[in-house]
Amino acid sequence: MHDVAHGPHIEGHFESSESVRDIVIGLSDGLTVPFALAAGLSGAVASSHIVVLAGLAEIAAGSIAMGLGGYLAARGDAEHYASERIREEREVIERTKDEEEEISEIFEQYSVDRVSAGPVLAALKQNPKAWVDFMMRFELGLEEPSPNRAHRSALTIAGSYIAGGIIPLLPYMLVADDLTALKLSVLITLLALAIFGALKGKLVGTGWLRSSLQTVTIGGAAAAVAYLLARLLNHRA
Amino acid sequence: MHDVAHGPHIEGHFESSESVRDIVIGLSDGLTVPFALAAGLSGAVASSHIVVLAGLAEIAAGSIAMGLGGYLAARGDAEHYASERIREEREVIERTKDEEEEISEIFEQYSVDRVSAGPVLAALKQNPKAWVDFMMRFELGLEEPSPNRAHRSALTIAGSYIAGGIIPLLPYMLVADDLTALKLSVLITLLALAIFGALKGKLVGTGWLRSSLQTVTIGGAAAAVAYLLARLLNHRA
Repeated sequence: MHDVAHGPHIEGHFESSESVRDIVIGLSDGLTVPFALAAGLSGAVASSHIVVLAGLAEIAAGSIAMGLGGYLAARGDAEHYASERIREEREVIERTKDEEEEISEIFEQYSVDRVSAGPVLAALKQNPKAWVDFMMRFELGLEEPSPNRAHRSALTIAGSYIAGGIIPLLPYMLVADDLTALKLSVLITLLALAIFGALKGKLVGTGWLRSSLQTVTIGGAAAAVAYLLARLLNHRA
Repeated sequence: MHDVAHGPHIEGHFESSESVRDIVIGLSDGLTVPFALAAGLSGAVASSHIVVLAGLAEIAAGSIAMGLGGYLAARGDAEHYASERIREEREVIERTKDEEEEISEIFEQYSVDRVSAGPVLAALKQNPKAWVDFMMRFELGLEEPSPNRAHRSALTIAGSYIAGGIIPLLPYMLVADDLTALKLSVLITLLALAIFGALKGKLVGTGWLRSSLQTVTIGGAAAAVAYLLARLLNHRA
């Protein structure tokens, strides 16, 4: 969920598409949190019925929170880009000297002096649209978000969260014996986390084995702590 | 949680520090998901004890999943930056012509021709470190992550999640009557969401009222759906 967006990559290294990133965001949490909650609760309450209820309530809450959150974040990005763009468009006309100065300062950070940067500035001034494009990317570090990103992002994240969250609950729905359901849930979810982690690692280029171990560790740690905490509190109560 | 990182902002617009972003990430989810789960469960099971157990298990699971997730994301960013930097350092020496060509291509996107970009290229070639800095930022769009970001990020996100998640559970812990606890939980959590949303809006510059309404809507929608779902399933079962 907390992946930080990288800028564009031109050299043919891996560039994750926005949809893939949204699927990864939704699946990471969806496979982890409902799983840990179900495992935790089954350590404290004997009834599969309550585990399933709590799990489904969590999936509903989590998918809505993440989906709406993703929607608002994407819409916020688009609005931010649009308002900054209008501002830059105005500034290259009304405060031309200041904007020229800013270009010189950008280049000075890379020890390119004013004289060397001069021809670039002159070329940008020939083409105000390119100048604004240049300022958006090199002064403000902003990329133009793709249109309709907000809706797609919300649905992809929420759908992935639901798909991931259902997996650990299936055994509690289908198997009568509570302990067997817990064991099966742990087994299939850790397997799903391992496969998901490996695919994610291959995609992002961190190495499939390491990524797989990481996702299994996060899910396993969250479930183990939730389980121990729920048992402890239940014995105390 | 799904805030997308912006690049640096030089013009004195708001630039959220990384810690503020981590607090916002943790609080957004911490105030929303445990709240919705508790509200959902209290619509289905009569016992505050189980609501508190499930809520605490969720907080444990969610804070670990988000904290570890944030840790790995930050560490991944740092490793990605370091490996790309080594690659660029090698390329400006071994494949100088290709890298020169890439600089020309970057400028051509902004209709700056090769001749105008020439002096910038010549200046960058005088200073290989600045050249690599330039390529990292303008070709690859990567920022150097601050050191120790991963640990700090993990602890900040997890701590904020726990702080946010405890708020909706307090009434269930302190008030004997289940229905009163639910009402109190809804009241104080919506209030907390409204205050948090307003502060976030002021900070990010989206306007406090709008941001406040948005966070209340997300939390309220998640809780309402979880509540309805849990009631529906419980009546069917």
